[in-house]
Amino acid sequence: MSLSWLSLIISFILSSASISGRKLDTPTLSLHREHNLRDSKHAVSASVANDYETFFFNQTLDHFNYRPESYTAFKQRYLINSNYWGGANYSAPIFVYLGAESPIDGEPTTIGFLTDNAAQFKALLVYIEHRYYGESIPLGMTLKGALEDANIRGYFSSAQALADYAAIIMHVKQKLKARYSPVIVVGASYGGMLASWFRLKYPHVALGALASSAPILYYDRITPQDAYHWVITKDFKEASETCYQTIRDSWSEIDRVAHKPDGLSNLNKMFKTCKPLESVDELKGYLKSLYWRAAQYDDPPIYPVTMICNGIDGANTIENGILGKIFAGIVAYDGNSTCYVNPSTDVSQTSLGWSWQKCSEMVMPIGITNNSMFQPHPFILSDFIDECNSSYGVMPQLHWVTTYYGGYDIELILRRFGSNIIFSNGLRDPWSSAGVLKNISNSIIAVYTEKGSHCLDLYSEMQTDPNWLVMQRKTEVKIIKGWIAEYYADLLAFKQ
Amino acid sequence: MSLSWLSLIISFILSSASISGRKLDTPTLSLHREHNLRDSKHAVSASVANDYETFFFNQTLDHFNYRPESYTAFKQRYLINSNYWGGANYSAPIFVYLGAESPIDGEPTTIGFLTDNAAQFKALLVYIEHRYYGESIPLGMTLKGALEDANIRGYFSSAQALADYAAIIMHVKQKLKARYSPVIVVGASYGGMLASWFRLKYPHVALGALASSAPILYYDRITPQDAYHWVITKDFKEASETCYQTIRDSWSEIDRVAHKPDGLSNLNKMFKTCKPLESVDELKGYLKSLYWRAAQYDDPPIYPVTMICNGIDGANTIENGILGKIFAGIVAYDGNSTCYVNPSTDVSQTSLGWSWQKCSEMVMPIGITNNSMFQPHPFILSDFIDECNSSYGVMPQLHWVTTYYGGYDIELILRRFGSNIIFSNGLRDPWSSAGVLKNISNSIIAVYTEKGSHCLDLYSEMQTDPNWLVMQRKTEVKIIKGWIAEYYADLLAFKQ
Repeated sequence: MSLSWLSLIISFILSSASISGRKLDTPTLSLHREHNLRDSKHAVSASVANDYETFFFNQTLDHFNYRPESYTAFKQRYLINSNYWGGANYSAPIFVYLGAESPIDGEPTTIGFLTDNAAQFKALLVYIEHRYYGESIPLGMTLKGALEDANIRGYFSSAQALADYAAIIMHVKQKLKARYSPVIVVGASYGGMLASWFRLKYPHVALGALASSAPILYYDRITPQDAYHWVITKDFKEASETCYQTIRDSWSEIDRVAHKPDGLSNLNKMFKTCKPLESVDELKGYLKSLYWRAAQYDDPPIYPVTMICNGIDGANTIENGILGKIFAGIVAYDGNSTCYVNPSTDVSQTSLGWSWQKCSEMVMPIGITNNSMFQPHPFILSDFIDECNSSYGVMPQLHWVTTYYGGYDIELILRRFGSNIIFSNGLRDPWSSAGVLKNISNSIIAVYTEKGSHCLDLYSEMQTDPNWLVMQRKTEVKIIKGWIAEYYADLLAFKQ
Repeated sequence: MSLSWLSLIISFILSSASISGRKLDTPTLSLHREHNLRDSKHAVSASVANDYETFFFNQTLDHFNYRPESYTAFKQRYLINSNYWGGANYSAPIFVYLGAESPIDGEPTTIGFLTDNAAQFKALLVYIEHRYYGESIPLGMTLKGALEDANIRGYFSSAQALADYAAIIMHVKQKLKARYSPVIVVGASYGGMLASWFRLKYPHVALGALASSAPILYYDRITPQDAYHWVITKDFKEASETCYQTIRDSWSEIDRVAHKPDGLSNLNKMFKTCKPLESVDELKGYLKSLYWRAAQYDDPPIYPVTMICNGIDGANTIENGILGKIFAGIVAYDGNSTCYVNPSTDVSQTSLGWSWQKCSEMVMPIGITNNSMFQPHPFILSDFIDECNSSYGVMPQLHWVTTYYGGYDIELILRRFGSNIIFSNGLRDPWSSAGVLKNISNSIIAVYTEKGSHCLDLYSEMQTDPNWLVMQRKTEVKIIKGWIAEYYADLLAFKQ
């Protein structure tokens, strides 16, 4: 197959895998907010952007095999902030942020939890970029280039990423002669899954893990496919029963209008679309993604779900009926603009890379069958397989995550195995539906907030933070302090 | 490089990696006794050779990557004995023997521990062959053929083998609808390492592990390189101080005789060699391997170390001095024969396969520096690397085992992580020097016997078994019963 054909196919899957409502039509897992609803001028701490040194580690391409190509090395980026570190002589802790599906540059600023707490722990801060993102792409390729090569993209897997982290952490500890410094790994969203799995697979490298908004139970058939959309529905219903009802009724109304003569063109006018709609699904996809984002990132002090519902409920729409209300919801969220309904043309590394990860191993069967404010749109496994197969020529490994990392009967399994994991969640985040929401043992602990959103606990402390968020973070800090104190006591006994 | 050249190189490393005393000169890890010192007519149970059904599983070549070649399937063999099983309705246990560096066929007969105890546990017995051994070689190749292919041999790794086991166990449980049947994995020697690592990496697949004579601490620099030979020395010293002294003095005497005119030819006569010696190292290598084997497999009721020492101490050797005594030791071990000192020409799958595994990842730095009954022969890392590199073109991954599986500070690390592992050892076995000999927690337990040998606990019960061996096995059974009882209680609570 020629390269241009391959590019064409890649472009197809990438567009169809975006959140624009077409084909693969699944919500995004990113911890990053698209909207700058959280104003950094309210941050408690100062900017930390310049407190980091950048390093590159000579990483092994393939940790698990010994083929000639396995030994290929590539540069993997990591950042270190040593401003707060108590030093190796005191076995002071090391906090390691496990990068996920985006470049690592922005994380020291985004993940305020580490910088906000480094001083009280006297912790070294390390941020490691995930392979194939940012500047950590094998063979000096671009991500797009790497994904176009069926062989090279094949090394882009979570097990390899965890082994990368182990190698870098051990390297850093050796370099700093910090053999007995306890390591706490921290991760958000997909990175949260990695953090919890890392503690389970590499207990000799990490003493504990803070796994924020990690939907580790959305694999195989552990969680019902509807769970994600049930939570969104609940969020809107709780914000406003009439708002929920309006959204619920809007889909058939959109269809009704669309199917009349000049339907799309009328919808263009009603929604002041930036570009003429190509299909009614484009509008519906845009709206779904709006509600996904609002619920997932339903952050204080603004609370986007409430903001949208205020728009919908408050609309003076004698003229335009239900669709006028829906439009008012969009305007409430997006603000005053010359046009709306800008279909996503996201070709970020996140959307490129996650599209591959989803097709190869991170298969989360998310769909809509009933009892939600959305139209039914069930997850059809055979369609998913066909799409992945035709896009990347791979058969999605549907059971690999549960085979390698587990997930079924997790309470039973981890009740007497493993320790030192915090699963933190905010229950307004639809991903929390596949998170761990119950304490499993006295050191594998669920810390959640009723009103919290996706990965909110890891964001920088703000003057406007509500008390429940302040308390959640305090609980997490207290638990981690407990692990470290226990470890130091063990260490003392062990060294005698 | 042409295939014939490659074959030549392969043959070189294989001969040099054997236990014949040349080049790589390291002891064997096999659980299998070369000599039939344990007479099966004393076995308590009847033969079990015909109680098994053979299956082949469609196994994935490469679990950790998603390259096109990763999806290649191969047939992996496993055996099932369901004669004793209590069935899925009772969630009756499943004992899984994790095959190691040899074909699986013989194991149901060899590993009597499973058949001897199946009835009281109502356990299903499963024996899984390790990839690249027996009939479980990818692409329908011979092991020799697979090892000659730099690409194909690259998939021959321990992490892949563990993932194979997980896939087969989950498949068997699904097929039998035995979701809640607890799985206990059992392994011996290298297989014992795999069993302990399997419980740590796949706690959702195995409830517990019995790891017999697993030297998991012989990697990197955890255990001093001399440890193996120190134990052998201790064994001989305890059997007889004069015997130990004779062996200790014999090496320089062999050298002295060898360096005289007609030295080798005189040694040929003194030792009645089957073939003329090519070098003095051939004789010394043979003797070292004799003492290794005697100590490692110092089994009751015969106790080969004592047998050799009786030969040495009892020899009437006014004529031949020290070497006459040494020869009497050989005769005592080998019995009456027309000739002796048959250099090993072992080209079994075990020696072929382990030679690769040692060079790629299972790097155990075993050497002799001082304080033993042997001549110094230190482990020289650069030589080892050069040999592996020139034989297989690979750089041994010296730190991979400790990176992936851990090992350093194991007591500190596993004190509050993990559960349900028995590390069993016999302290006369030189491999016990790198085993876990202390309880780490109340469920990660060391069960050892002062007089035991390599993997002895897993062999069939015999009428001649000494009391300490009977007790060791009883302790192991009791501990496993405890795990299963606790699990059933958890299961009951969990299902309510």
